[in-house]
Amino acid sequence: MGIERDMGPGAKVLLLSNSTMHGENYLAYAEPHIKDFFKKCNVDRVLFIPYALNDMDGYAEVAKKAFLRMGIELDSIHTFSDPHWAAEKATGFFVGGGNTFLLLKRLYEADIMDIIRRRVLQNGIPYVGSSAGTNVATVSINTTNDMPIVQPPSFQAIGLVHFNINPHYVDPDLSSKHMGVRAS
Amino acid sequence: MGIERDMGPGAKVLLLSNSTMHGENYLAYAEPHIKDFFKKCNVDRVLFIPYALNDMDGYAEVAKKAFLRMGIELDSIHTFSDPHWAAEKATGFFVGGGNTFLLLKRLYEADIMDIIRRRVLQNGIPYVGSSAGTNVATVSINTTNDMPIVQPPSFQAIGLVHFNINPHYVDPDLSSKHMGVRAS
Repeated sequence: MGIERDMGPGAKVLLLSNSTMHGENYLAYAEPHIKDFFKKCNVDRVLFIPYALNDMDGYAEVAKKAFLRMGIELDSIHTFSDPHWAAEKATGFFVGGGNTFLLLKRLYEADIMDIIRRRVLQNGIPYVGSSAGTNVATVSINTTNDMPIVQPPSFQAIGLVHFNINPHYVDPDLSSKHMGVRAS
Repeated sequence: MGIERDMGPGAKVLLLSNSTMHGENYLAYAEPHIKDFFKKCNVDRVLFIPYALNDMDGYAEVAKKAFLRMGIELDSIHTFSDPHWAAEKATGFFVGGGNTFLLLKRLYEADIMDIIRRRVLQNGIPYVGSSAGTNVATVSINTTNDMPIVQPPSFQAIGLVHFNINPHYVDPDLSSKHMGVRAS
């Protein structure tokens, strides 16, 4: 469940709704798409951004294993002393899911959104996002379903695409009697 | 579905989870509780805050009818040229549901949160909130399920109670196969 768009000369963005399908391993359903996407870009090493979860060490380990299955090396940005340097040198980006507000707040704190935007849109560095990593690739996080557990300085996001996405939209349950017709 | 708390000498707060039960009229399920609450406070006229929805005229009309059935007059704050004056003079507050981010942003814009806090906690003016109106009565809106359609300057709320509330919590559907075990 992803969309792949070529946003202009060289810009390559693959946005996935989620990382895990029911009963499958992390990223399993998406592996052929991610593998093919990075292969077409001649990329065999990506920078992982695990900011959307609190256990960044554990998250990076899971992501590293999944990417190794695809023949791609993965370094997590939280292991670099200088995130600017890591973002400037990355040959590909993978931004994982979790809480969108937490992810965006930490992206602002690391001050790397301008670098990612420039490198993806101007230098053709490929970007893969999943769930929260998809939300932050859009214009803003105004359409997330996540709970606002922390407050980023702005809801404006990286803006790799010119629209917003709700990665976990579910059709309304018309048989629900949870509340009234007006959800207020 | 509401909790009524006496937060100290004279502070009277009734927080409802929602305004409408499936198949019932606006506020119908809550009418005996609201009526009894305001009656005990000797209040027969309340100030309505309809900021959580965009159609404030229509919202005020619906709320006015519901309160008239309880024998209580209702004036909507959006019909006053000076919301400060209206909040200072109110003999009771009713803050309706809708979108929590929109409600909080407009409360900041109207600059009436300090007035409401002081009048409820120090002067014993009764406060009834429903849904978003319950969220903004707590410490912060960090536990809302609403979509962040607009950005308030802060997630800090009125703070009439010393905890947060999720008014629309639903137990997880353990049979769901929408995503994997990790919701990311």
